[in-house]
Amino acid sequence: MDIPKENFSDWYNAVIKEAELCDLRYNIKGFVVIMPNAADVISRMYRLYEDALERKGHRKSYFPALISEKNLEAEKEHVEGFAPEVFWVTKAGNNELEEKMIMRPTSETAMYPMYSLWINGRCDLPLKIYQSCQVWRYETKATKPLIRGREFYWIEAHNVFADEAGVLAQVKEDMETTEEMIHQSFGVPFIFFQRPQWDKFAGAVNTYAADTMMPDGKALQLPSTHNLGTNFAKVFNVKYMDDDGEEKLGWQTCYGPCISRIFAAIVSIHGDNKGIILPFHLANVQVVITPILRKEGADEVISFAQTITEQLSKKYKVVADFTENTPGFKYNFWELNGAAIRVEIGARDIESRKAVVVRRDTREKEFVPFEDLPKRIGEIGEEMNKSLREKADEWFATMLKEADTLEELKSAVENGGGFVKVPFCTDELEGESCAEKIKEECAANIRGSRYGVNEKPSGKKCIVCGKDATTYQYAARQY
Amino acid sequence: MDIPKENFSDWYNAVIKEAELCDLRYNIKGFVVIMPNAADVISRMYRLYEDALERKGHRKSYFPALISEKNLEAEKEHVEGFAPEVFWVTKAGNNELEEKMIMRPTSETAMYPMYSLWINGRCDLPLKIYQSCQVWRYETKATKPLIRGREFYWIEAHNVFADEAGVLAQVKEDMETTEEMIHQSFGVPFIFFQRPQWDKFAGAVNTYAADTMMPDGKALQLPSTHNLGTNFAKVFNVKYMDDDGEEKLGWQTCYGPCISRIFAAIVSIHGDNKGIILPFHLANVQVVITPILRKEGADEVISFAQTITEQLSKKYKVVADFTENTPGFKYNFWELNGAAIRVEIGARDIESRKAVVVRRDTREKEFVPFEDLPKRIGEIGEEMNKSLREKADEWFATMLKEADTLEELKSAVENGGGFVKVPFCTDELEGESCAEKIKEECAANIRGSRYGVNEKPSGKKCIVCGKDATTYQYAARQY
Repeated sequence: MDIPKENFSDWYNAVIKEAELCDLRYNIKGFVVIMPNAADVISRMYRLYEDALERKGHRKSYFPALISEKNLEAEKEHVEGFAPEVFWVTKAGNNELEEKMIMRPTSETAMYPMYSLWINGRCDLPLKIYQSCQVWRYETKATKPLIRGREFYWIEAHNVFADEAGVLAQVKEDMETTEEMIHQSFGVPFIFFQRPQWDKFAGAVNTYAADTMMPDGKALQLPSTHNLGTNFAKVFNVKYMDDDGEEKLGWQTCYGPCISRIFAAIVSIHGDNKGIILPFHLANVQVVITPILRKEGADEVISFAQTITEQLSKKYKVVADFTENTPGFKYNFWELNGAAIRVEIGARDIESRKAVVVRRDTREKEFVPFEDLPKRIGEIGEEMNKSLREKADEWFATMLKEADTLEELKSAVENGGGFVKVPFCTDELEGESCAEKIKEECAANIRGSRYGVNEKPSGKKCIVCGKDATTYQYAARQY
Repeated sequence: MDIPKENFSDWYNAVIKEAELCDLRYNIKGFVVIMPNAADVISRMYRLYEDALERKGHRKSYFPALISEKNLEAEKEHVEGFAPEVFWVTKAGNNELEEKMIMRPTSETAMYPMYSLWINGRCDLPLKIYQSCQVWRYETKATKPLIRGREFYWIEAHNVFADEAGVLAQVKEDMETTEEMIHQSFGVPFIFFQRPQWDKFAGAVNTYAADTMMPDGKALQLPSTHNLGTNFAKVFNVKYMDDDGEEKLGWQTCYGPCISRIFAAIVSIHGDNKGIILPFHLANVQVVITPILRKEGADEVISFAQTITEQLSKKYKVVADFTENTPGFKYNFWELNGAAIRVEIGARDIESRKAVVVRRDTREKEFVPFEDLPKRIGEIGEEMNKSLREKADEWFATMLKEADTLEELKSAVENGGGFVKVPFCTDELEGESCAEKIKEECAANIRGSRYGVNEKPSGKKCIVCGKDATTYQYAARQY
């Protein structure tokens, strides 16, 4: 592997294969096998994300993978949005089923009828429940492993509040959780957008989503959060008896971080020409010990490397590479696989009582006295996390552009891509025709306005129709 | 809730409902919703079990939930075993699928074709991979929540070795993992059986399984482990180039702890008339603080309870019950829900600087000085775990019986049930007719012989046919 990351699509496909993240040869279209090198990290991400949601009062549940046709069809907009892309279960054993079922594409219609049974009084609210699960969608666009497929691995949190204020506060909390996990913990920058009205989740009042930027200048949607208002509550009878004795509808939100896709963003944004780079706390191998074996003194080096391995294993995930491969081969292999820190031990190092320590991201070397290794490795891990995040942030900042005309927009998306801020007539439904025009002329999509950022165009005209602009929208090519 | 556990079936149904473990009102037959009180524990069990498998060299993966008809049909015995109980996906969006797919009932036929691609040389072995997932089986027998349903939550580990010795060592390792997790960690006793030939997993050479005993004297199968020999390797071409230059078949095992069912065993075996009891490290609420509020001094009690809550929350999962319910109501509620340790704080306790501490299992009280609480609670947790396990072991020992005649066997299973050791002609296929007779006459099943225990009948006759007995088999009624 030494493919320049500039050819991002080739680089991504190569890294998926060479670092053994996914196997695409599974014999059902759109379904891939997530191999151990990726699964270990994804599993760690799940645990961290679940813990974060639980700290914010969500509780775990497991809802069935199958949903009855009747439930799917209850919410009109929702069924229109999802029916074209669901897998149907029509038979079991040798029996044709009387009522067909779908494999969950998302779980609103599985969960809310139960919420209706669980919620009685105001004291049952807020109800904050999540599940970690697979969902399935019959995606007809071209698939890309971990980014777009027919099966993905996510968390979905579904909450009910007594009023709209609860919903709006939850949108903010979701944004904060996204910041805490995806940016602070995983080092992936993003913008939290409010989507325009024509690009909402089927059945929602408003949709918000964290979009990151991939190295090829195309936006990738990470978690989205939906203000469902009382739309689903009406349909599924999610009601509570208020303290004033009146029966009221529940106000709902849902939030869906797709862990497999977030992993794809981590790999894409942090990686380099040598392979993958992971934040220290996510790495499968935090420390790889590479003994440098020459004929003379090999036994001593091996035994010393074993001692160091044992010592470091108490605190870190450590692998010692005792294979007979050359040092160069070992370095390449572990760099490809994203081992965070390499500790080289040769005969000379034993004499000097110092090891050569190399961090994966900058490949900087330093000499660390043996007795300082446990502590220093933790520090380097922290430094690496910080520097990965900062480097990503710096790059991300260069991907924020502005345009006042369609020509400028076109030139921006064609020259490196990124998010291009444009004055726009309206994010209400009437704005859709201008968005369509941008799609046709620039192959770019309107991603929405920045959530929580007060930026209103003054005296600007819509970049498409020339009417007075009421909003700044961000345009980008997208995955 | 105050149903005597002697009426086990009623007790179980009541506890599932009252402790809010599952909701059975989901509108697809055989599918239940696992509610937060159960999901939290199951999630914790998953993490512990995954960590144990990883310590033993297994790595995580995620394989697709769908399997092509072609793959299912490749192994003849396997398809015969599973075809009657699979859910079929025949349609996606509006398209009838050309090749039908099944929802995985177990993942051999998803995983082994990939293993065939992943394994080249002997250096690729052993391959030890697991996944944590849901599986679906169109169960036609009566369902019971968490015990038998159409959807369950398990781990499946699938390993490949260079030779039979590797397989046999893995069976032993699986047995040890079962002991470590289910008995030592969860306090659930079991016998690890080798199943008779007529009761093997479809496609296996030998099946081993850990059976526990439910309070009503009926056996419940917990993890099973299968020696697949080279049966699947032949079909799915799982081969490796040996160091001698010869291409050889891989030898395989699989191991399937069903986490949702193990949870059912924990609930059933440890619970009492008051509700559920969980090992300390599995409890959702390790400490419940119940302030005893009287009109006088209530503020002081609340503020003190808050301080204690904060302090203990650093080490334990703590809930403080500040509701206006009576102490008696609170005690019942938290006992029902399996809160492990209750700390009562009233005005008098603040004066004496001691709290009343009550452990859930024995409901023994002790007075603990405030400053000792953090340490003492950890100790009580340990004591509770040990005593839950020992109590279960003692009871389990009383459920091991022996019989030399069908009458004795019938009387044993009808009087409290349990595992009844009987001399038996043979565990080869020819023994099946004798097993059938036992099923007819005693409604009991032959569960197999004890793995790793050398007990051979000498001079005994088969309890059914009267031929010379070659094996001791254990009979039991079963779930």
